[in-house]
Amino acid sequence: MILDEYGDNAEFHLTELPQPSVKAGHVVVRVAATSVNTVDTMIRQMGKDLPLSPDLPAVLGMDFAGTIEAVGKGVTDFVPGDEVYGCAGGLANLQGTLAEYMLADARLIAHKPKSLSMREAAALPLVGITAFEGLQRAGARAGQKVLVHGGAGGVGHVAVQLAKHLGADVYATVSGEKQMEIIEKYGATPINYKAEKVTGYVAKHTDGAGFDVIFDSVGGANMTNSFEAAALNGQVVSTVSMLELDLTPLHFKGLSLHVVFMLIPMLHDHKREEHGAILAKLAKLAKIADAGALKPLLDETPFGLEEVGKAHDRLTSGQAIGKLVAEI
Amino acid sequence: MILDEYGDNAEFHLTELPQPSVKAGHVVVRVAATSVNTVDTMIRQMGKDLPLSPDLPAVLGMDFAGTIEAVGKGVTDFVPGDEVYGCAGGLANLQGTLAEYMLADARLIAHKPKSLSMREAAALPLVGITAFEGLQRAGARAGQKVLVHGGAGGVGHVAVQLAKHLGADVYATVSGEKQMEIIEKYGATPINYKAEKVTGYVAKHTDGAGFDVIFDSVGGANMTNSFEAAALNGQVVSTVSMLELDLTPLHFKGLSLHVVFMLIPMLHDHKREEHGAILAKLAKLAKIADAGALKPLLDETPFGLEEVGKAHDRLTSGQAIGKLVAEI
Repeated sequence: MILDEYGDNAEFHLTELPQPSVKAGHVVVRVAATSVNTVDTMIRQMGKDLPLSPDLPAVLGMDFAGTIEAVGKGVTDFVPGDEVYGCAGGLANLQGTLAEYMLADARLIAHKPKSLSMREAAALPLVGITAFEGLQRAGARAGQKVLVHGGAGGVGHVAVQLAKHLGADVYATVSGEKQMEIIEKYGATPINYKAEKVTGYVAKHTDGAGFDVIFDSVGGANMTNSFEAAALNGQVVSTVSMLELDLTPLHFKGLSLHVVFMLIPMLHDHKREEHGAILAKLAKLAKIADAGALKPLLDETPFGLEEVGKAHDRLTSGQAIGKLVAEI
Repeated sequence: MILDEYGDNAEFHLTELPQPSVKAGHVVVRVAATSVNTVDTMIRQMGKDLPLSPDLPAVLGMDFAGTIEAVGKGVTDFVPGDEVYGCAGGLANLQGTLAEYMLADARLIAHKPKSLSMREAAALPLVGITAFEGLQRAGARAGQKVLVHGGAGGVGHVAVQLAKHLGADVYATVSGEKQMEIIEKYGATPINYKAEKVTGYVAKHTDGAGFDVIFDSVGGANMTNSFEAAALNGQVVSTVSMLELDLTPLHFKGLSLHVVFMLIPMLHDHKREEHGAILAKLAKLAKIADAGALKPLLDETPFGLEEVGKAHDRLTSGQAIGKLVAEI
C-alpha cells in the first residue's frame, strides 16, 4: 500500500513493488501483521511539516511481526524462517511495513515472543519500547507511586503493565467505563480525569504528596497536569513536547522531565542495538503474560492490508480501544 | 545582621538577638564564616514575590562553616567543638547564618573538610550540593562530554571540578580572560560564549554530535542554548526554570531536563539527610584537593559580617570572581 500525497484525506493505494534485496546488517522480512501508531497518522496528515516524513510515493507503517526471508552479511542472530518483530521503517528513507516484504536493520528487531500471535506481536514494538524507555529513564521501581496519563492508550496500557511488573503502585487516568475496567484488570487504579481534578486525585491517592513517576502518554498541554501531580523531585515522562510551556512548576518542585522520542535510532542510525535489546526483554515479559506481565490489547476491529486507511481513521477518531493491527 | 524590609536597596542592620536554644535533632553552631549565594540576593530584592522568603524582620544567609556549641537530643554524629559546615537556614521559618549563633538541623550538615579553611568551607554547601545533585541526576560519568554553562560562577566552578573528577571531558562557557584561565586550571576547555555561537562550538568540540551532559548554571532563557548544544538523548541540568520555553527541541532530540532546586529539603523538610550525606562526600573530595578534586574559589574581596550588604551588591554586579564569604 503506497501513499501518493499527504493530507487528512490522503488515500492509500495497492501497488506492485519489487521485493527488497537484502543488504549487510539487514534482513528481509515477510510481513505477517502491522499495527498503526499515532505517528503513522501524523505523517499521513502532516506530511513534510514533520521532519521525519518520507518522500512520496511512500510505503508507511513502522511496527511489524513476520518471518525472516533472507539474512544479510554480518547478521548472526537470525536465520531464514525465524519469527521476528520490530519497529524498523515507515519514515525518512526507510520503507515501511504496509507491504508483503520489507528490509529491516537487524539491530532493530528481536525474536517474536512465542506466547503472542503475529497480530499481538505487531502491536508491541513502538509502544513497548516507548513505555520501557520512559520508565527506565525515570528510574521507576518497586514501591513507588506511578501515574500513567492515557492509561488505556497504545503506550499507556503497556506502561501500566510494565510499571506493575516492576512492583510499583500504579494509577492511570482514563475516561469511560470500558477503559476503567481495563486498568482494573491490570491491577492498577483507574482515575476518571473528566470527573476528578488533579488536586483531588493527588490528595486521595498520595495524601497530597504527589506521584513519584508520571508517565504522560498524552503529553503536550497535559504536561501541566503532570507537573501538578508530581511529588517533590518527581520524574515526569512525556511522549509529546512540541509546544511552549511554563516551566515554573519544574523549578519549585525540582522535577526531571524525560521526553521519549523512540524514532531517534531509526531516524539518525543512533544506538539501534538498544531497540533490539529492549524488544528481547519485552519478549521475555510477554512469555509470563499469564502471570499478568505483558500482553498488548488489540482493538476488536480486525483490518486487512487494503483497509489501512480505515484503521488510520479509527485511530484518529479516538474510538479504538487497544491497538489497531492489519494482517497482511 | 537583620533585614527589616525587602527591596533592591534594603539594608542590613546590626542587632542583638537571644542565642538560639538547641532542640531535638538539631545543633547550635557558632558561625565562623558565611557565603553569599544568588538566592540570598533574590530574597533580599524580591521578598515575598518568592515563595520562600522569611517573614520580616529576618536573619538571612544559608551557607556557613563553624563550630558546634550544643547538641540536641537524638544527634549522634556530632559533639560540641566539632567543626562543621552546611546550608541550613535563611529562608521560610529558618533563621539564617548572618549571626554569631544559629540552630541547624543535624541532617543538613557534615564535618568540615580539614583541608579547607572556614571561609573556603562556607563557600561550598549550596553550590556544592547543587553541582553534585545535578551531575548525579544527569548520570554524568567518565568518558562523556560535559558542558557547563557559567563555568566560572558559584555552582559552575564546582560542577566543572566534580565533572573532571568523574573522568568526563569537560567544557565550560565563560567570558573574560581571568575566567578562561580558571577553567584551564581545572583541566577543562573554556569556551568564550560571546565570541562563539552554539553551532560553532558544538561542531568544534563534538563533531556536531552535541554534548552528553549540559549543566546550565545560568538557566532561564539560556536553556535554549543548552537544548541546542545537547546530543541525542542528552541530559540537561538547569538551576533556574521560572519561565515559558519552547520544548520542541526536547522532543526531537529526546532530551531529559533535570531542574535542581536544592532548597527543597530545607523548605519542605524533605529528605534532609541526603544533604548531609552529599556534604560528607564533598568533604572527602576536598581532602584530595591538591590532586585537583575540589577546592572552592574565593573572591579576592574579604567581607566582615557588617559588610554583607556590600557583598550582596558585589555578587549582583557580576564583578565577583569566585564566592563571596563573610567572616563572623
